[in-house]
Amino acid sequence: VSIEILPVPGIPEIRRGDDLGRILADATRSAGIALAAGDVLVVTQKIVSKSEGRVVAEEPDGKAAWVARETRRVVARRGDLVIAETRHGFVCANAGVDASNVGQGSLSLLPEDPDASAERIRASVSARTGAEVAVVVTDTFGRAWRRGLVNVAIGVAGLPALIDLRGTSDATGRTLEVTVVALADEIAAASGLVMGKAEGVPASVVRGARFAGPPLPASVIIRPPDEDLFRVGEGGADPGAGGTT
Amino acid sequence: VSIEILPVPGIPEIRRGDDLGRILADATRSAGIALAAGDVLVVTQKIVSKSEGRVVAEEPDGKAAWVARETRRVVARRGDLVIAETRHGFVCANAGVDASNVGQGSLSLLPEDPDASAERIRASVSARTGAEVAVVVTDTFGRAWRRGLVNVAIGVAGLPALIDLRGTSDATGRTLEVTVVALADEIAAASGLVMGKAEGVPASVVRGARFAGPPLPASVIIRPPDEDLFRVGEGGADPGAGGTT
Repeated sequence: VSIEILPVPGIPEIRRGDDLGRILADATRSAGIALAAGDVLVVTQKIVSKSEGRVVAEEPDGKAAWVARETRRVVARRGDLVIAETRHGFVCANAGVDASNVGQGSLSLLPEDPDASAERIRASVSARTGAEVAVVVTDTFGRAWRRGLVNVAIGVAGLPALIDLRGTSDATGRTLEVTVVALADEIAAASGLVMGKAEGVPASVVRGARFAGPPLPASVIIRPPDEDLFRVGEGGADPGAGGTT
Repeated sequence: VSIEILPVPGIPEIRRGDDLGRILADATRSAGIALAAGDVLVVTQKIVSKSEGRVVAEEPDGKAAWVARETRRVVARRGDLVIAETRHGFVCANAGVDASNVGQGSLSLLPEDPDASAERIRASVSARTGAEVAVVVTDTFGRAWRRGLVNVAIGVAGLPALIDLRGTSDATGRTLEVTVVALADEIAAASGLVMGKAEGVPASVVRGARFAGPPLPASVIIRPPDEDLFRVGEGGADPGAGGTT
């Protein structure tokens, strides 16, 4: 029961309105990958945003104005760097506004609803290939106390973004305490091994991941305010900040 | 250039003083995995700690006393949950003190020096198999703003824990800005797909990851205090807290 991570090369430059499901189904077939039930198709935010028209012209003052528009709450700030909560609830650098792989003078914004994007791609690819695939839309996020970026899941369809092992037993028979596994983030990070930013490979297939139970979207990964121990940011509406409960 | 993640089953219960390098070399061979140069052997903290005698008896009041001993700085606290910085600099729940997979009445502590642990395993396995493998020692950490645990690297030998892409170009020819990739954490998270806590598989091989350049230990992943935007914790010595610079 090993896992394979297969890059999907040959995806053309994506433009607004492109049918990503068709393009991904074609590219996987051209790459010799016969999609099968249980395969997870991993797609970068960048091509999803491009297909959805979420690429905008950089403004004269740079990207600050776009970052401000995409920000629901500033979590931390240093110099030009803003750690922001997006309207989806993700906490990331510059509210997901990013200049890489969109060409000079442009910026990409996160999809309006990445879980819905994942579901559209899932439905389209499954219909075209006859294989009930799952889909994870990824972005690269930094972490509070660890250097370096990793791919994380911002949109999920067809698999449980989180798996709750609480109440099950470990290998010694002891009941596991606090063990909710972020399956979609593991899959996203794994895909980063073949989908580096410099490599121009915006999709991959993760094959062999085991999951069961009802699908859960990426929105369930977002820690609700009353569980957030790090609401230290300046500014912004903060209706739900609960501190300790 | 796909990636494979191969579980290494059949590892016996590890005890203090066991030669993990020998045990892992034997187990991979028995699993039919012929280790080759560039393979990354991923090993959970749990068996490393067991082999190094870092399993202790739970105290009458539970694990709080051990958590306090392992804590250099309390970063946040809610009820029984302490988010703590360990003496290594990792920020994680309960300073890495964990009750799972060590049997009733025992607790595991993180290795004293997980990079050194990784290097010992790397040298031993490479000598025994003739294959220049890399080694990543993992633990499961939570994240500030995302629910669920993911495997991260706490010890690394034979590969660069971080890869700095700054100054390289993206697929459109634009220079990448802030792109340091946490390769070891991607590998660790990927391994989580076959090394779940409930599964009793404490090692795996990640094959096909591309890396070059000098090795960098997991300690380089730790964000230094003057880059840490989230030093909000109570108590503890905090000599380097720099705030903004």
